[in-house]
Amino acid sequence: MTQAIKIIVNGAQGKMGAMTCQTLDNHTEFDCVARLGRGDNLTTAIKDTKAAIVIDFTNADSVYTNAKTIISSNTHPIIGSSGLLNHQIQELQALCDENKVGGIIAPNFSIGAILMMRLAADSARYFSDVEILETHHQQKIDAPSGTAIKTAQMIAEHLSSKTKTLISKELVPGVRGGEYEGITIHSQRLPGTVAEQQVTFGSQGETLSICHRSINRECFMPGVILACRKVTTLSHLVYGLDNLLE
Amino acid sequence: MTQAIKIIVNGAQGKMGAMTCQTLDNHTEFDCVARLGRGDNLTTAIKDTKAAIVIDFTNADSVYTNAKTIISSNTHPIIGSSGLLNHQIQELQALCDENKVGGIIAPNFSIGAILMMRLAADSARYFSDVEILETHHQQKIDAPSGTAIKTAQMIAEHLSSKTKTLISKELVPGVRGGEYEGITIHSQRLPGTVAEQQVTFGSQGETLSICHRSINRECFMPGVILACRKVTTLSHLVYGLDNLLE
Amino acid sequence: MTQAIKIIVNGAQGKMGAMTCQTLDNHTEFDCVARLGRGDNLTTAIKDTKAAIVIDFTNADSVYTNAKTIISSNTHPIIGSSGLLNHQIQELQALCDENKVGGIIAPNFSIGAILMMRLAADSARYFSDVEILETHHQQKIDAPSGTAIKTAQMIAEHLSSKTKTLISKELVPGVRGGEYEGITIHSQRLPGTVAEQQVTFGSQGETLSICHRSINRECFMPGVILACRKVTTLSHLVYGLDNLLE
Amino acid sequence: MTQAIKIIVNGAQGKMGAMTCQTLDNHTEFDCVARLGRGDNLTTAIKDTKAAIVIDFTNADSVYTNAKTIISSNTHPIIGSSGLLNHQIQELQALCDENKVGGIIAPNFSIGAILMMRLAADSARYFSDVEILETHHQQKIDAPSGTAIKTAQMIAEHLSSKTKTLISKELVPGVRGGEYEGITIHSQRLPGTVAEQQVTFGSQGETLSICHRSINRECFMPGVILACRKVTTLSHLVYGLDNLLE
Repeated sequence: MTQAIKIIVNGAQGKMGAMTCQTLDNHTEFDCVARLGRGDNLTTAIKDTKAAIVIDFTNADSVYTNAKTIISSNTHPIIGSSGLLNHQIQELQALCDENKVGGIIAPNFSIGAILMMRLAADSARYFSDVEILETHHQQKIDAPSGTAIKTAQMIAEHLSSKTKTLISKELVPGVRGGEYEGITIHSQRLPGTVAEQQVTFGSQGETLSICHRSINRECFMPGVILACRKVTTLSHLVYGLDNLLE
Repeated sequence: MTQAIKIIVNGAQGKMGAMTCQTLDNHTEFDCVARLGRGDNLTTAIKDTKAAIVIDFTNADSVYTNAKTIISSNTHPIIGSSGLLNHQIQELQALCDENKVGGIIAPNFSIGAILMMRLAADSARYFSDVEILETHHQQKIDAPSGTAIKTAQMIAEHLSSKTKTLISKELVPGVRGGEYEGITIHSQRLPGTVAEQQVTFGSQGETLSICHRSINRECFMPGVILACRKVTTLSHLVYGLDNLLE
Repeated sequence: MTQAIKIIVNGAQGKMGAMTCQTLDNHTEFDCVARLGRGDNLTTAIKDTKAAIVIDFTNADSVYTNAKTIISSNTHPIIGSSGLLNHQIQELQALCDENKVGGIIAPNFSIGAILMMRLAADSARYFSDVEILETHHQQKIDAPSGTAIKTAQMIAEHLSSKTKTLISKELVPGVRGGEYEGITIHSQRLPGTVAEQQVTFGSQGETLSICHRSINRECFMPGVILACRKVTTLSHLVYGLDNLLE
Repeated sequence: MTQAIKIIVNGAQGKMGAMTCQTLDNHTEFDCVARLGRGDNLTTAIKDTKAAIVIDFTNADSVYTNAKTIISSNTHPIIGSSGLLNHQIQELQALCDENKVGGIIAPNFSIGAILMMRLAADSARYFSDVEILETHHQQKIDAPSGTAIKTAQMIAEHLSSKTKTLISKELVPGVRGGEYEGITIHSQRLPGTVAEQQVTFGSQGETLSICHRSINRECFMPGVILACRKVTTLSHLVYGLDNLLE
């Protein structure tokens, strides 16, 4: 029988951390050997448990230091934070190469969201017109969502011809949405929703829409499991879960 | 056998006029006795045909004069124009009362669109949060649509509690849409669409959406037929097809 | 200062009961004076607390007996069960009249779902063609949902003309859905959803859709609060939360 | 200046043929040199005009004979018919190879529909659960649509794990739809629609939908133009417009 892969969850008291621990417990191929919180020492825990992987769901303040600790301990990091700066990511990638340790930084673990962006980018090659509509709960202050911005970037790279300048006459300012890299984005904020995004391409006589909707944090768990399965086969620190989808 | 009701279509060469003539031809209860264009004389045609109803699809420049002619001839007007000014409507209503002639001014003949607005206004009493999304073809320059503005007004009158001020932090200006009477409106412009509107109410754990979509001018024909059936029973000049729906 | 209304929650350990207790705690107009489980005595609790209202979320086996106990104690019942038989409901209504106690039996506390059914019934008067699509999570064994069946009944009562018999040639048996009282229903079962229903009316050149989506049990709380506010003003035992919406 | 490519449209009096002629007239890179109907002789027209391409929109009865004529004349065929049998397609492909003529048989010229199928097949690798919903106007007798069947086949080839057998208890027979190669399909038939298909994948806490909607025949024109641009570069007779999308 294959031995279960030993995993430490750092930030295990947070919502994502707690759900990850529970999910790992339901997978016999993994053994969640430590659930660390604020008071715990990560270096000691890695040494004591001989974990192969550390999943880090701590916040932007501590994630960089934690990542360095994990890599220096020759353990595979799975970093679930969007708070790392570009130069920090580059330093961590260099450290991984130096230590010959593969790892993953995943700002978004939702496989559905990643596919939605990929399908939108693929479709963009065949259309000239597109709008993005994202809908989130009202506690989300920032608009648009990071996903909408990333989608707009990916579409802008591939769109078959430049979108025309907005020539609409706005009788009510703002109704035509905002423009990012030439792509129009609309952000709805409504209770009763969690996170949705609809990308609609329009052409003569037809439209093609790609719509992703998540209703709770469970949508991140298949991506976390995928990361746990693949990280030990990696030889670099990759950025984005999309690199793990063939 | 009941005799067919005689109807004149004024502006019969335009798209709406031509389709109306064709539709009337398919209804044996109606007899389209004259199809008038630019060169024709409306007064003479009414006298010659003894028509009971005139449907006017002429443009904003001539509709007011035509309406006066129709009413003064003691014929029921069905006015399919959104170009009348408020004081003109009031004058025409006074003229109808004077002549004891019932009539209809209908800026929108789509029964589906009218129901959508009514359902939205009905639902507004039970929600505090709502956003309007309208999507039209790219030839539509104005944004938002007149329907969106009217819907916002109707919702604003009924919404159970005031919508909070927009507190979103717009990283891309305009993404949170425009606000009309406190109601957020988003306008998409995409080829492959004709006219769509979606009103979404949000509450704790649930959303309720009302969505109307029209794909061609045929959607106006049931409303035109409804108007023809009801106009002879009216004793005033009513504004809006909604007055004909029970 | 008005005194808070005393409320007992029976079945407080279940998911709906627990969430109701938490919600009542957030409303100062109510005082949740007892949270009863299996071992507790309802009669004693009512006497001891002098509660004005009992909300009962117990199961089909005990709900009838509990309801009789509540009414006989001259307390307002709010019954959140769909398990009562018709003759039981009638007996409880008679008992309420006898005791001059108002109450509510609500098989569905979602205000959004109730509105969706009402809007669908209202719209049916203006259309001849309609289809119902409901989507639920995969743990829901029965198809269609009770809501879909009730919606079909309500639509069938109002539809402007009879829907034509299904004349489609089914190359794959079942694709055209099922028919209930002449209304076509489709049931999707997919993970990542909780409960959705879309009613689409079609007419010449246009469609009108009414769509309700709930993503968690929180959607029932506004209806529970509404019931608590209204039940003390009722003089009969009403069936269905729709009776509390003007 | 490059000379315009000479094109014959066979079946130019039909709806697709007439619209194709009009579209070609708007593209200066093409020259529509003949518009043939029933009485016209295709062989003679090809000789007389020295056309490089023949677009054939004739019906199932004559398309095979026409295709042979076109290929034997060393002209590139663009065949817009779904009426060819498998062995006929193979014979035509052999004839093309023999004559060293490239050509296209395209049962569907909608680029949006083809992309929708491709995106659905791509996504299937990452999900275990999916349902197809297609909606067409009421004149469409057959259910499901050919597109739905083809989509189900493409999804079935790629779905990451077998969809579970339908275990739903159907209280109304047919509501759970039909199953084709293990994929559930629902077919709606409603006036006010032309052709729509929505493929919804469901997973823990999230759904991904791909939706294509066409509202008139214009949606086929970009695909026809694409075929005209690519057919002269082909060395074989390819089946399906998807082969022309990179």
